[in-house]
Amino acid sequence: MRRDLTPLFEPETLAIVGVSADSGKWGYWFARDAALGSHRRRVYLVGRNGGEVHGMTVHRSLGELPEPPELVVLSVPADGLEQAVDDSLAVGARALVAIAAGFAELGEEGAARERALVERVRAAGAALIGPNCLGVFDGAAELQLASTPLPGGPVGFISQSGNVLLEIGLLLEDFGLGFSRAVSIGNQADVDATELVSALAEHDGTRVIGIYCEDFRDGRAFVEAARTAGKPVVLLTVGRTAAGRRAALSHTGALTSGREAVEAACRAGGMHLVETPRELVDAAQALLTPHRPHGRRIAVIGDGGGYGAIASDLLGGSGIELPVLSEPTQARLRELLPPTASTANPVDLAGAGEQDVFSFAHSTRALLESDDVDAVLFTAYFGGYSTLSDEMLEREVAVAGLLAEATAESGKPLVVHTMYPSSPPAHALRAAGVPVYRVIESAVDATATLVAAGATVPAPLAALPPPAPPIGDASYPAARAALAGAGISFGAARTVSGREEALASAAELGYPVVLKALGLLHKSDAGGVGLDLWDDGELAAAFDDLVARLAPESFSVEAAEDVAGGFELLVGARRDPRFGPLVAVAAGGIHVETVRDTAVALAPVHEDAAEELVRSLASAPLLTGARGRPPLDVAAAAHAVAALSRFAAAHPEVAEVEVNPLLVSREGEGAVGLDARIVLTSSAD
Amino acid sequence: MRRDLTPLFEPETLAIVGVSADSGKWGYWFARDAALGSHRRRVYLVGRNGGEVHGMTVHRSLGELPEPPELVVLSVPADGLEQAVDDSLAVGARALVAIAAGFAELGEEGAARERALVERVRAAGAALIGPNCLGVFDGAAELQLASTPLPGGPVGFISQSGNVLLEIGLLLEDFGLGFSRAVSIGNQADVDATELVSALAEHDGTRVIGIYCEDFRDGRAFVEAARTAGKPVVLLTVGRTAAGRRAALSHTGALTSGREAVEAACRAGGMHLVETPRELVDAAQALLTPHRPHGRRIAVIGDGGGYGAIASDLLGGSGIELPVLSEPTQARLRELLPPTASTANPVDLAGAGEQDVFSFAHSTRALLESDDVDAVLFTAYFGGYSTLSDEMLEREVAVAGLLAEATAESGKPLVVHTMYPSSPPAHALRAAGVPVYRVIESAVDATATLVAAGATVPAPLAALPPPAPPIGDASYPAARAALAGAGISFGAARTVSGREEALASAAELGYPVVLKALGLLHKSDAGGVGLDLWDDGELAAAFDDLVARLAPESFSVEAAEDVAGGFELLVGARRDPRFGPLVAVAAGGIHVETVRDTAVALAPVHEDAAEELVRSLASAPLLTGARGRPPLDVAAAAHAVAALSRFAAAHPEVAEVEVNPLLVSREGEGAVGLDARIVLTSSAD
Repeated sequence: MRRDLTPLFEPETLAIVGVSADSGKWGYWFARDAALGSHRRRVYLVGRNGGEVHGMTVHRSLGELPEPPELVVLSVPADGLEQAVDDSLAVGARALVAIAAGFAELGEEGAARERALVERVRAAGAALIGPNCLGVFDGAAELQLASTPLPGGPVGFISQSGNVLLEIGLLLEDFGLGFSRAVSIGNQADVDATELVSALAEHDGTRVIGIYCEDFRDGRAFVEAARTAGKPVVLLTVGRTAAGRRAALSHTGALTSGREAVEAACRAGGMHLVETPRELVDAAQALLTPHRPHGRRIAVIGDGGGYGAIASDLLGGSGIELPVLSEPTQARLRELLPPTASTANPVDLAGAGEQDVFSFAHSTRALLESDDVDAVLFTAYFGGYSTLSDEMLEREVAVAGLLAEATAESGKPLVVHTMYPSSPPAHALRAAGVPVYRVIESAVDATATLVAAGATVPAPLAALPPPAPPIGDASYPAARAALAGAGISFGAARTVSGREEALASAAELGYPVVLKALGLLHKSDAGGVGLDLWDDGELAAAFDDLVARLAPESFSVEAAEDVAGGFELLVGARRDPRFGPLVAVAAGGIHVETVRDTAVALAPVHEDAAEELVRSLASAPLLTGARGRPPLDVAAAAHAVAALSRFAAAHPEVAEVEVNPLLVSREGEGAVGLDARIVLTSSAD
Repeated sequence: MRRDLTPLFEPETLAIVGVSADSGKWGYWFARDAALGSHRRRVYLVGRNGGEVHGMTVHRSLGELPEPPELVVLSVPADGLEQAVDDSLAVGARALVAIAAGFAELGEEGAARERALVERVRAAGAALIGPNCLGVFDGAAELQLASTPLPGGPVGFISQSGNVLLEIGLLLEDFGLGFSRAVSIGNQADVDATELVSALAEHDGTRVIGIYCEDFRDGRAFVEAARTAGKPVVLLTVGRTAAGRRAALSHTGALTSGREAVEAACRAGGMHLVETPRELVDAAQALLTPHRPHGRRIAVIGDGGGYGAIASDLLGGSGIELPVLSEPTQARLRELLPPTASTANPVDLAGAGEQDVFSFAHSTRALLESDDVDAVLFTAYFGGYSTLSDEMLEREVAVAGLLAEATAESGKPLVVHTMYPSSPPAHALRAAGVPVYRVIESAVDATATLVAAGATVPAPLAALPPPAPPIGDASYPAARAALAGAGISFGAARTVSGREEALASAAELGYPVVLKALGLLHKSDAGGVGLDLWDDGELAAAFDDLVARLAPESFSVEAAEDVAGGFELLVGARRDPRFGPLVAVAAGGIHVETVRDTAVALAPVHEDAAEELVRSLASAPLLTGARGRPPLDVAAAAHAVAALSRFAAAHPEVAEVEVNPLLVSREGEGAVGLDARIVLTSSAD
């Protein structure tokens, strides 16, 4: 559903329902905020006690208004909300903002009331924000409806938390920034984050989109809205921990997604994932700069050796190394700087800035113009000189202008850290589109954000295939068969129930064999697998042992694979409640449980994307032939990953599927599943 | 050497040498700063041009002064420094501060000049700060000698970077904090960080010690000074990346230590390691609170569900989980809060704060008094209500008082995040010793810092043993023998040079055997190891193959160990240039190179500390019997780690030693080295 949300952001008429004369009440604050835009639109106040508030008449009901309000803010308690919505729709409201909490976040009864409300709103062709929200803001339209005045600027913001929205506003204000439009979406019963991402994508005044979201609803639509927004999207979310999930559930009734799903979604949608409001604001400021690095080569320049070292280490922690600058670049810097300056990278002006503050501009320009680097991080006392005298102030502001010129002419981003972030030179840089930060970690994060923004052009999401005929049997032999049918190789195997049958199967397959007890969820952990059985005697002994300990109903006799020289991967898939099927590949074997080396993507993935996943593992060098090892069959591994991802995407009834281990052999020798497991959802959806 | 540094911080007479009338010169700034303390001490200015600066007479030489200055700040260029030092010593100066750069950081010639200078200073019984430094500060003594005025407060700070010192000062000032004493140590040619840690430990006005250090010099003395300081120590350092090491080397000539060495040193010294100036200041503010949690159980309380979720996730990222609160605690919270509030943890007031701001105080007190938690993180709009009206302001300040009371009475720390960090209630909290932060990550870091501070009571460093007779031969058989002599078990092995000798040795040891080509640094990578040789034929074939490919001088024939069911560790040691011998234990086998699962400590370690190291690995569950696996011989592994650590500590000529893999078998069956390697330093020190 794509609706015109103009009545929400730019209403010509506005009513606040639930106005109060009590200065500690929301109804009082909303009336005050609404009044701020009364020179631009007709504002009506409605409250049961009538009278006057903020010098404006308070009408006793919506029906008393001289005209229908386009936008109605409902600042009424939960038990009066349904009536107020009906009243609003009755007088022809097009957009409603419902503040009250007490609906879906409290459980199924509240959710049902919410659904009923939304049905009536949609039937009337209107749109509803909330319930359980803080309000809405449009800077250009001077629409202030968020309990406290918000700053205007170029950042569109969608928030499932009112307080996060307020804090983001305060943090943006520090940078001289603010919101183009901001919406507190609460339980997003009707208008949700996805719809607003699309609306902000089309809004000219919005240059960067920020989102705090707990529940992504239709996660794939959300990803696609972000991917096609045509402007940067920064996402803050929660739910990595049990406590975080508890908090989100009780806050907005949100069903949070696992961290790996969120990370995969952000890669797929080209979104920048952050952990805190500060990081969101830092990323937004960075992404407002029009320049993007074309690579990962960063130069650091500053007038403190300690600063350069700290910045270098932090960049390294973000996976960005500083190249040693080429001799021509270093020669140019030596011409500009005193002999004690270090020019390798980081560049330390070694006091040159104190002697002549213009040396900042000249040497930074030299770096931006060099082919050695893709972006420059400037970390300095710069800005502090302006506190010394008016003359220095003038010079520093002039340097800021030269720095801005150099970044514009080179087309490469410049990111600045200064301990004087509110100084006139700092403001001059920001005004010219150069991001300036107070703490070095912010500047480093901003640099990493820009590097990521320069690198990422995500492809459209692969469509989910139509559901295949559902799997009914999740037993081990059935799982193997289903996955083999999907294109994953397994070795030869026979399902048997008696000892003689086992011996006969082994004779047929040829020794050595493996014997597995079936019907156990975690065969290996339960001691249900006999490995490396070389003859009838060993097989028979293993059989008797399994019978004695586990009494399984049946067994699998399998040709043993030569695992030496190969590498074991885990390949699996599961369904996220919001983002749907995910495929994962991980370093397998015994390390799976203790050392996290996993790559995840939204499923299905094509073979090339699957190969990228495999190669992104920390363990990838063990597959690709590092340090004299033979290269393994990465293409075959990728084929298996892609096949499993398609299988999972086509089987919504499969909650989890895993091939562990997938033994990857030498190049050209393939990858073969040594075990398989499928878990069906308790009720297939 | 323990010297009285009183003349440095509290001189009765002070001279600035190199005074200039040019307002852009350091000599001008120092004269201005020195004048700030002229009501407390006699201040003399010295400059070759004489005249007057800042209304004070400028003497043409130190010899012209009416009395000897206790402290002399030498703001002269590098080429005049030696003469200025000699002149100062000649008139009886007790403490010198040398600002000029251009000494050890430029290379050996500068280092030699530095050493000569220090010899003369020490011979005169004086102390020298610098060269290549910014100055010194003492808040109580009103000694301002750092080019720009610094704020006073309870934090003692030692910095190898002038700009880092200035930034820390600005960040502390935001919190209403500042320095007790601050020293920019530059190249620390004479007075070094260790000496100053001890001095600040004895200084009553210093309650927390902060350090930015690039070069730890005698690292073990530094650790011991921190460990015995009797007050919290927070350390910021660099050198994790190649670029960071380059920067430190050219900045102060520092030989940086590896990250693992620094982390081990911090554990040994009970120091809090941080990455940035902001983190240092955040940790310092936290550690000023007198309370320490007695465990890791944290409750989060706030008036925004989003806030609670974000805080919970960040705490989880720091390894701190939020327990679900007990039923009695939740019941008490339910009495205090509206029915929509969530009480499980995080606690969300759900609007109660808006209704009655005192609900913050009551519910936070309920948490602090509960046996369920060891500390409380408060994340809220709190502080913002005070912007609404004077009445709300008064109430919020009263609530701040109640919060401070509750933390004092419970003896548990309270950490506060608010988006209004400069509001009167925020200041009231800080004044009462409750740390208050502007961004949630700071509050989370502070909480983690306090948890660590509550847990850590490091034992004294084990003394380095006297050097053992040096190892002359680092060949494989010699390394095995030396390590076996040190107490590490190896299987039976024979060194052979011919094929017949190999076959005879195998007959003696019994098949299966392993055949290794000797004389190669990385045997396995070069394909120099034949595994699992079961009979004469296999052994002969492996022998011929190695001869053909590698033509080694000799071979080792070894009894093959049964690796199935065991776990392979890497146990190694190396020497850090500053912290000396380090011992490391890591998950071994092929994952060593790709997945970092390593624990490091300063060597030597006793068996119990070695066992703690082993158990601290992410892979530890694979050793200790997780998920039905048999428990392995962790005690034997710890014994090998301790033995290797003692060996490394006693052999300064050994640059690196490694047993990889150390095969840890089932409990009671020991741990046996399957390979060994020793690298000698090119010139033993």
